[in-house]
Amino acid sequence: MIILVRLSGELGVKSPKSKLNFEHALIQNIKNVINVKHVSIDQNYIILDVDGNYDKLSKVFGIASYSPVDVISFSSLSELVEYVKNKYAEAVKGKKFAVKVRRVGKHTFTSLDVAKAVGSVLYPYSSGVNLENPDIRIYIHIRQDYAYVYDKIFEGAKGFPTGTTGKTVVLFSGGFDSPVATWMMMKRGASVTLLNFKLGGDLHKNIVTEEAKILSEWNSGHKIKIYFIDGVKVLTALANVDKYIRVVVLKRIMYKTAQLLAKEINAYSVTTGESLSQVSSQTMRNLFVTEYNINIPIFRPLIGFDKDEIIELSKKVGTFNFSSKLPEYCAISTKATTSANLDEVIKAEEEANIDYKKLIDETEIVIV
Amino acid sequence: MIILVRLSGELGVKSPKSKLNFEHALIQNIKNVINVKHVSIDQNYIILDVDGNYDKLSKVFGIASYSPVDVISFSSLSELVEYVKNKYAEAVKGKKFAVKVRRVGKHTFTSLDVAKAVGSVLYPYSSGVNLENPDIRIYIHIRQDYAYVYDKIFEGAKGFPTGTTGKTVVLFSGGFDSPVATWMMMKRGASVTLLNFKLGGDLHKNIVTEEAKILSEWNSGHKIKIYFIDGVKVLTALANVDKYIRVVVLKRIMYKTAQLLAKEINAYSVTTGESLSQVSSQTMRNLFVTEYNINIPIFRPLIGFDKDEIIELSKKVGTFNFSSKLPEYCAISTKATTSANLDEVIKAEEEANIDYKKLIDETEIVIV
Repeated sequence: MIILVRLSGELGVKSPKSKLNFEHALIQNIKNVINVKHVSIDQNYIILDVDGNYDKLSKVFGIASYSPVDVISFSSLSELVEYVKNKYAEAVKGKKFAVKVRRVGKHTFTSLDVAKAVGSVLYPYSSGVNLENPDIRIYIHIRQDYAYVYDKIFEGAKGFPTGTTGKTVVLFSGGFDSPVATWMMMKRGASVTLLNFKLGGDLHKNIVTEEAKILSEWNSGHKIKIYFIDGVKVLTALANVDKYIRVVVLKRIMYKTAQLLAKEINAYSVTTGESLSQVSSQTMRNLFVTEYNINIPIFRPLIGFDKDEIIELSKKVGTFNFSSKLPEYCAISTKATTSANLDEVIKAEEEANIDYKKLIDETEIVIV
Repeated sequence: MIILVRLSGELGVKSPKSKLNFEHALIQNIKNVINVKHVSIDQNYIILDVDGNYDKLSKVFGIASYSPVDVISFSSLSELVEYVKNKYAEAVKGKKFAVKVRRVGKHTFTSLDVAKAVGSVLYPYSSGVNLENPDIRIYIHIRQDYAYVYDKIFEGAKGFPTGTTGKTVVLFSGGFDSPVATWMMMKRGASVTLLNFKLGGDLHKNIVTEEAKILSEWNSGHKIKIYFIDGVKVLTALANVDKYIRVVVLKRIMYKTAQLLAKEINAYSVTTGESLSQVSSQTMRNLFVTEYNINIPIFRPLIGFDKDEIIELSKKVGTFNFSSKLPEYCAISTKATTSANLDEVIKAEEEANIDYKKLIDETEIVIV
């Protein structure tokens, strides 16, 4: 079966060299998830000859939309019209239909001529034409001496092909926010590595692992690596820190761990699920203190999101059910300040004397 | 007229003290934009007695939704039912209607009793009941001895009340992205100050000013300050910088200027409209280089957005038309690298020898 794949709009406006790189990455990603016998590129389309099911294309980033098509070689308008008639005479029965034609190349006929000719040969089989709200739309995209004919357009996942825009380390708690933040960076083509501070034993680990599996369905066949840090051990080191700032100190330790891991795996950013003022550790002042002297960009794709928008997206991504099973591990954050003192936090973090290298080295790694 | 205002969901789950602060800010913000004679708080509702038009509530952040209501004191079910009958007998004529009842307090009747009683007295005036898809919905929220009765729910702007979550300096070019990024931070309650590097003379200034005016409609009566920097002067200082990295150096200068301005006005963050890999200056590697040794959080609310999602939002915000008038000032970025060398960029920025303090001091300030 031939599938016409339309590239995400942003890929179409890249320089020719960049576009080629993105296309090649996208083709490889597609091959990772469906069975492709042959591939060609036709301007902003990728044309696939596939074997079997192609549903998984819906979760491949970099695709605006896709359609199963017939590719028709023709030498005259009447030949093309005859083909479309034979293909759709049955399909339009009892239905209102519309014909949409686009044409590139030199022809003795216009797009409108084609639409009229096809319309009039199908009309007798149908319940009539309805351009606004038809039961079936027939699309004919004409190139010089061939045409793509189809009647279905499936929406793609948009964004950039997985693995094309760099690596990011995601601070991944497994609540509603971090999986959605991960997905947004994946959508923009980033390769994600998850870093979890395990505070809730195996239950926590299992939920995070299941969420990562769901995210990996969006990862175009690439594996996702999860680093599980012993969060309880870190918390123990903070036993003497004032409750008032403990959660900010813990967050700072997480940032520093993520920064070091990023360095080790050549990632140039850290991603978090933070949303401005959602909780006390996410006030602007506390983010300032948490990030002080951290020297890697922190991406916070949800910084401008409301909680209910995040929850909506988590349903689309598929992580909602697991996120809602995660208990709150934030008992540590009761009585937390919304405006931590910078010097106090930095002093507390230094006094905790965390061996970040060791923390990462002793990590448990799971790959899904 | 009495307006019942429902708080954004996130405000409802804050600690009592925080909630009170948010409520007071919201009430002040509402008073800034509409004529309020009296205010009271009833659990998660704010009850306003307003004079005249209240349309502007739709752009006040912190409001989930709002309804013009009647507040009915009653001593018996029949009194309440009689009131609703008198109010809606005319309104249900020729219409299918539905009644939704919520009840808090101790009563001798249930919510269902009320719905049934109201339904049966209105039925003869109407075209019947339709619970799924009525032409008119009548809502009755009963407290102990009074009820809110209404039939309209207007959607609010959600988010947090303007000015409640801290100040941010926005690097504001005036293209599609930066106004939307500004709006998203405003939605989360931030006070925004705009910083523009003017590269296109008065045209550029006028577009930015008009966009700021549109944004100020969402700012609950607070003014927006725009700092216009002479961007051409900055570019001139970069004349000898290799074209390959010039745009990254310029971006780094913008970050540093924004950082200094933030410090001067006590803002704890900088906001940009960057979206991962949208253009060469926004690759992960280049953002890493641009942000190196910048010591303030950079919020990038659009980092995970596709361009078409940003453009959709710009239509909602209202800045689309002005953004589309802005010419591209990025001729400087042709031949730009997607992977700048850190040392080279830092050296070039140092050699440009920008007097950041002077740059800000010589700024032209416009307040809208």
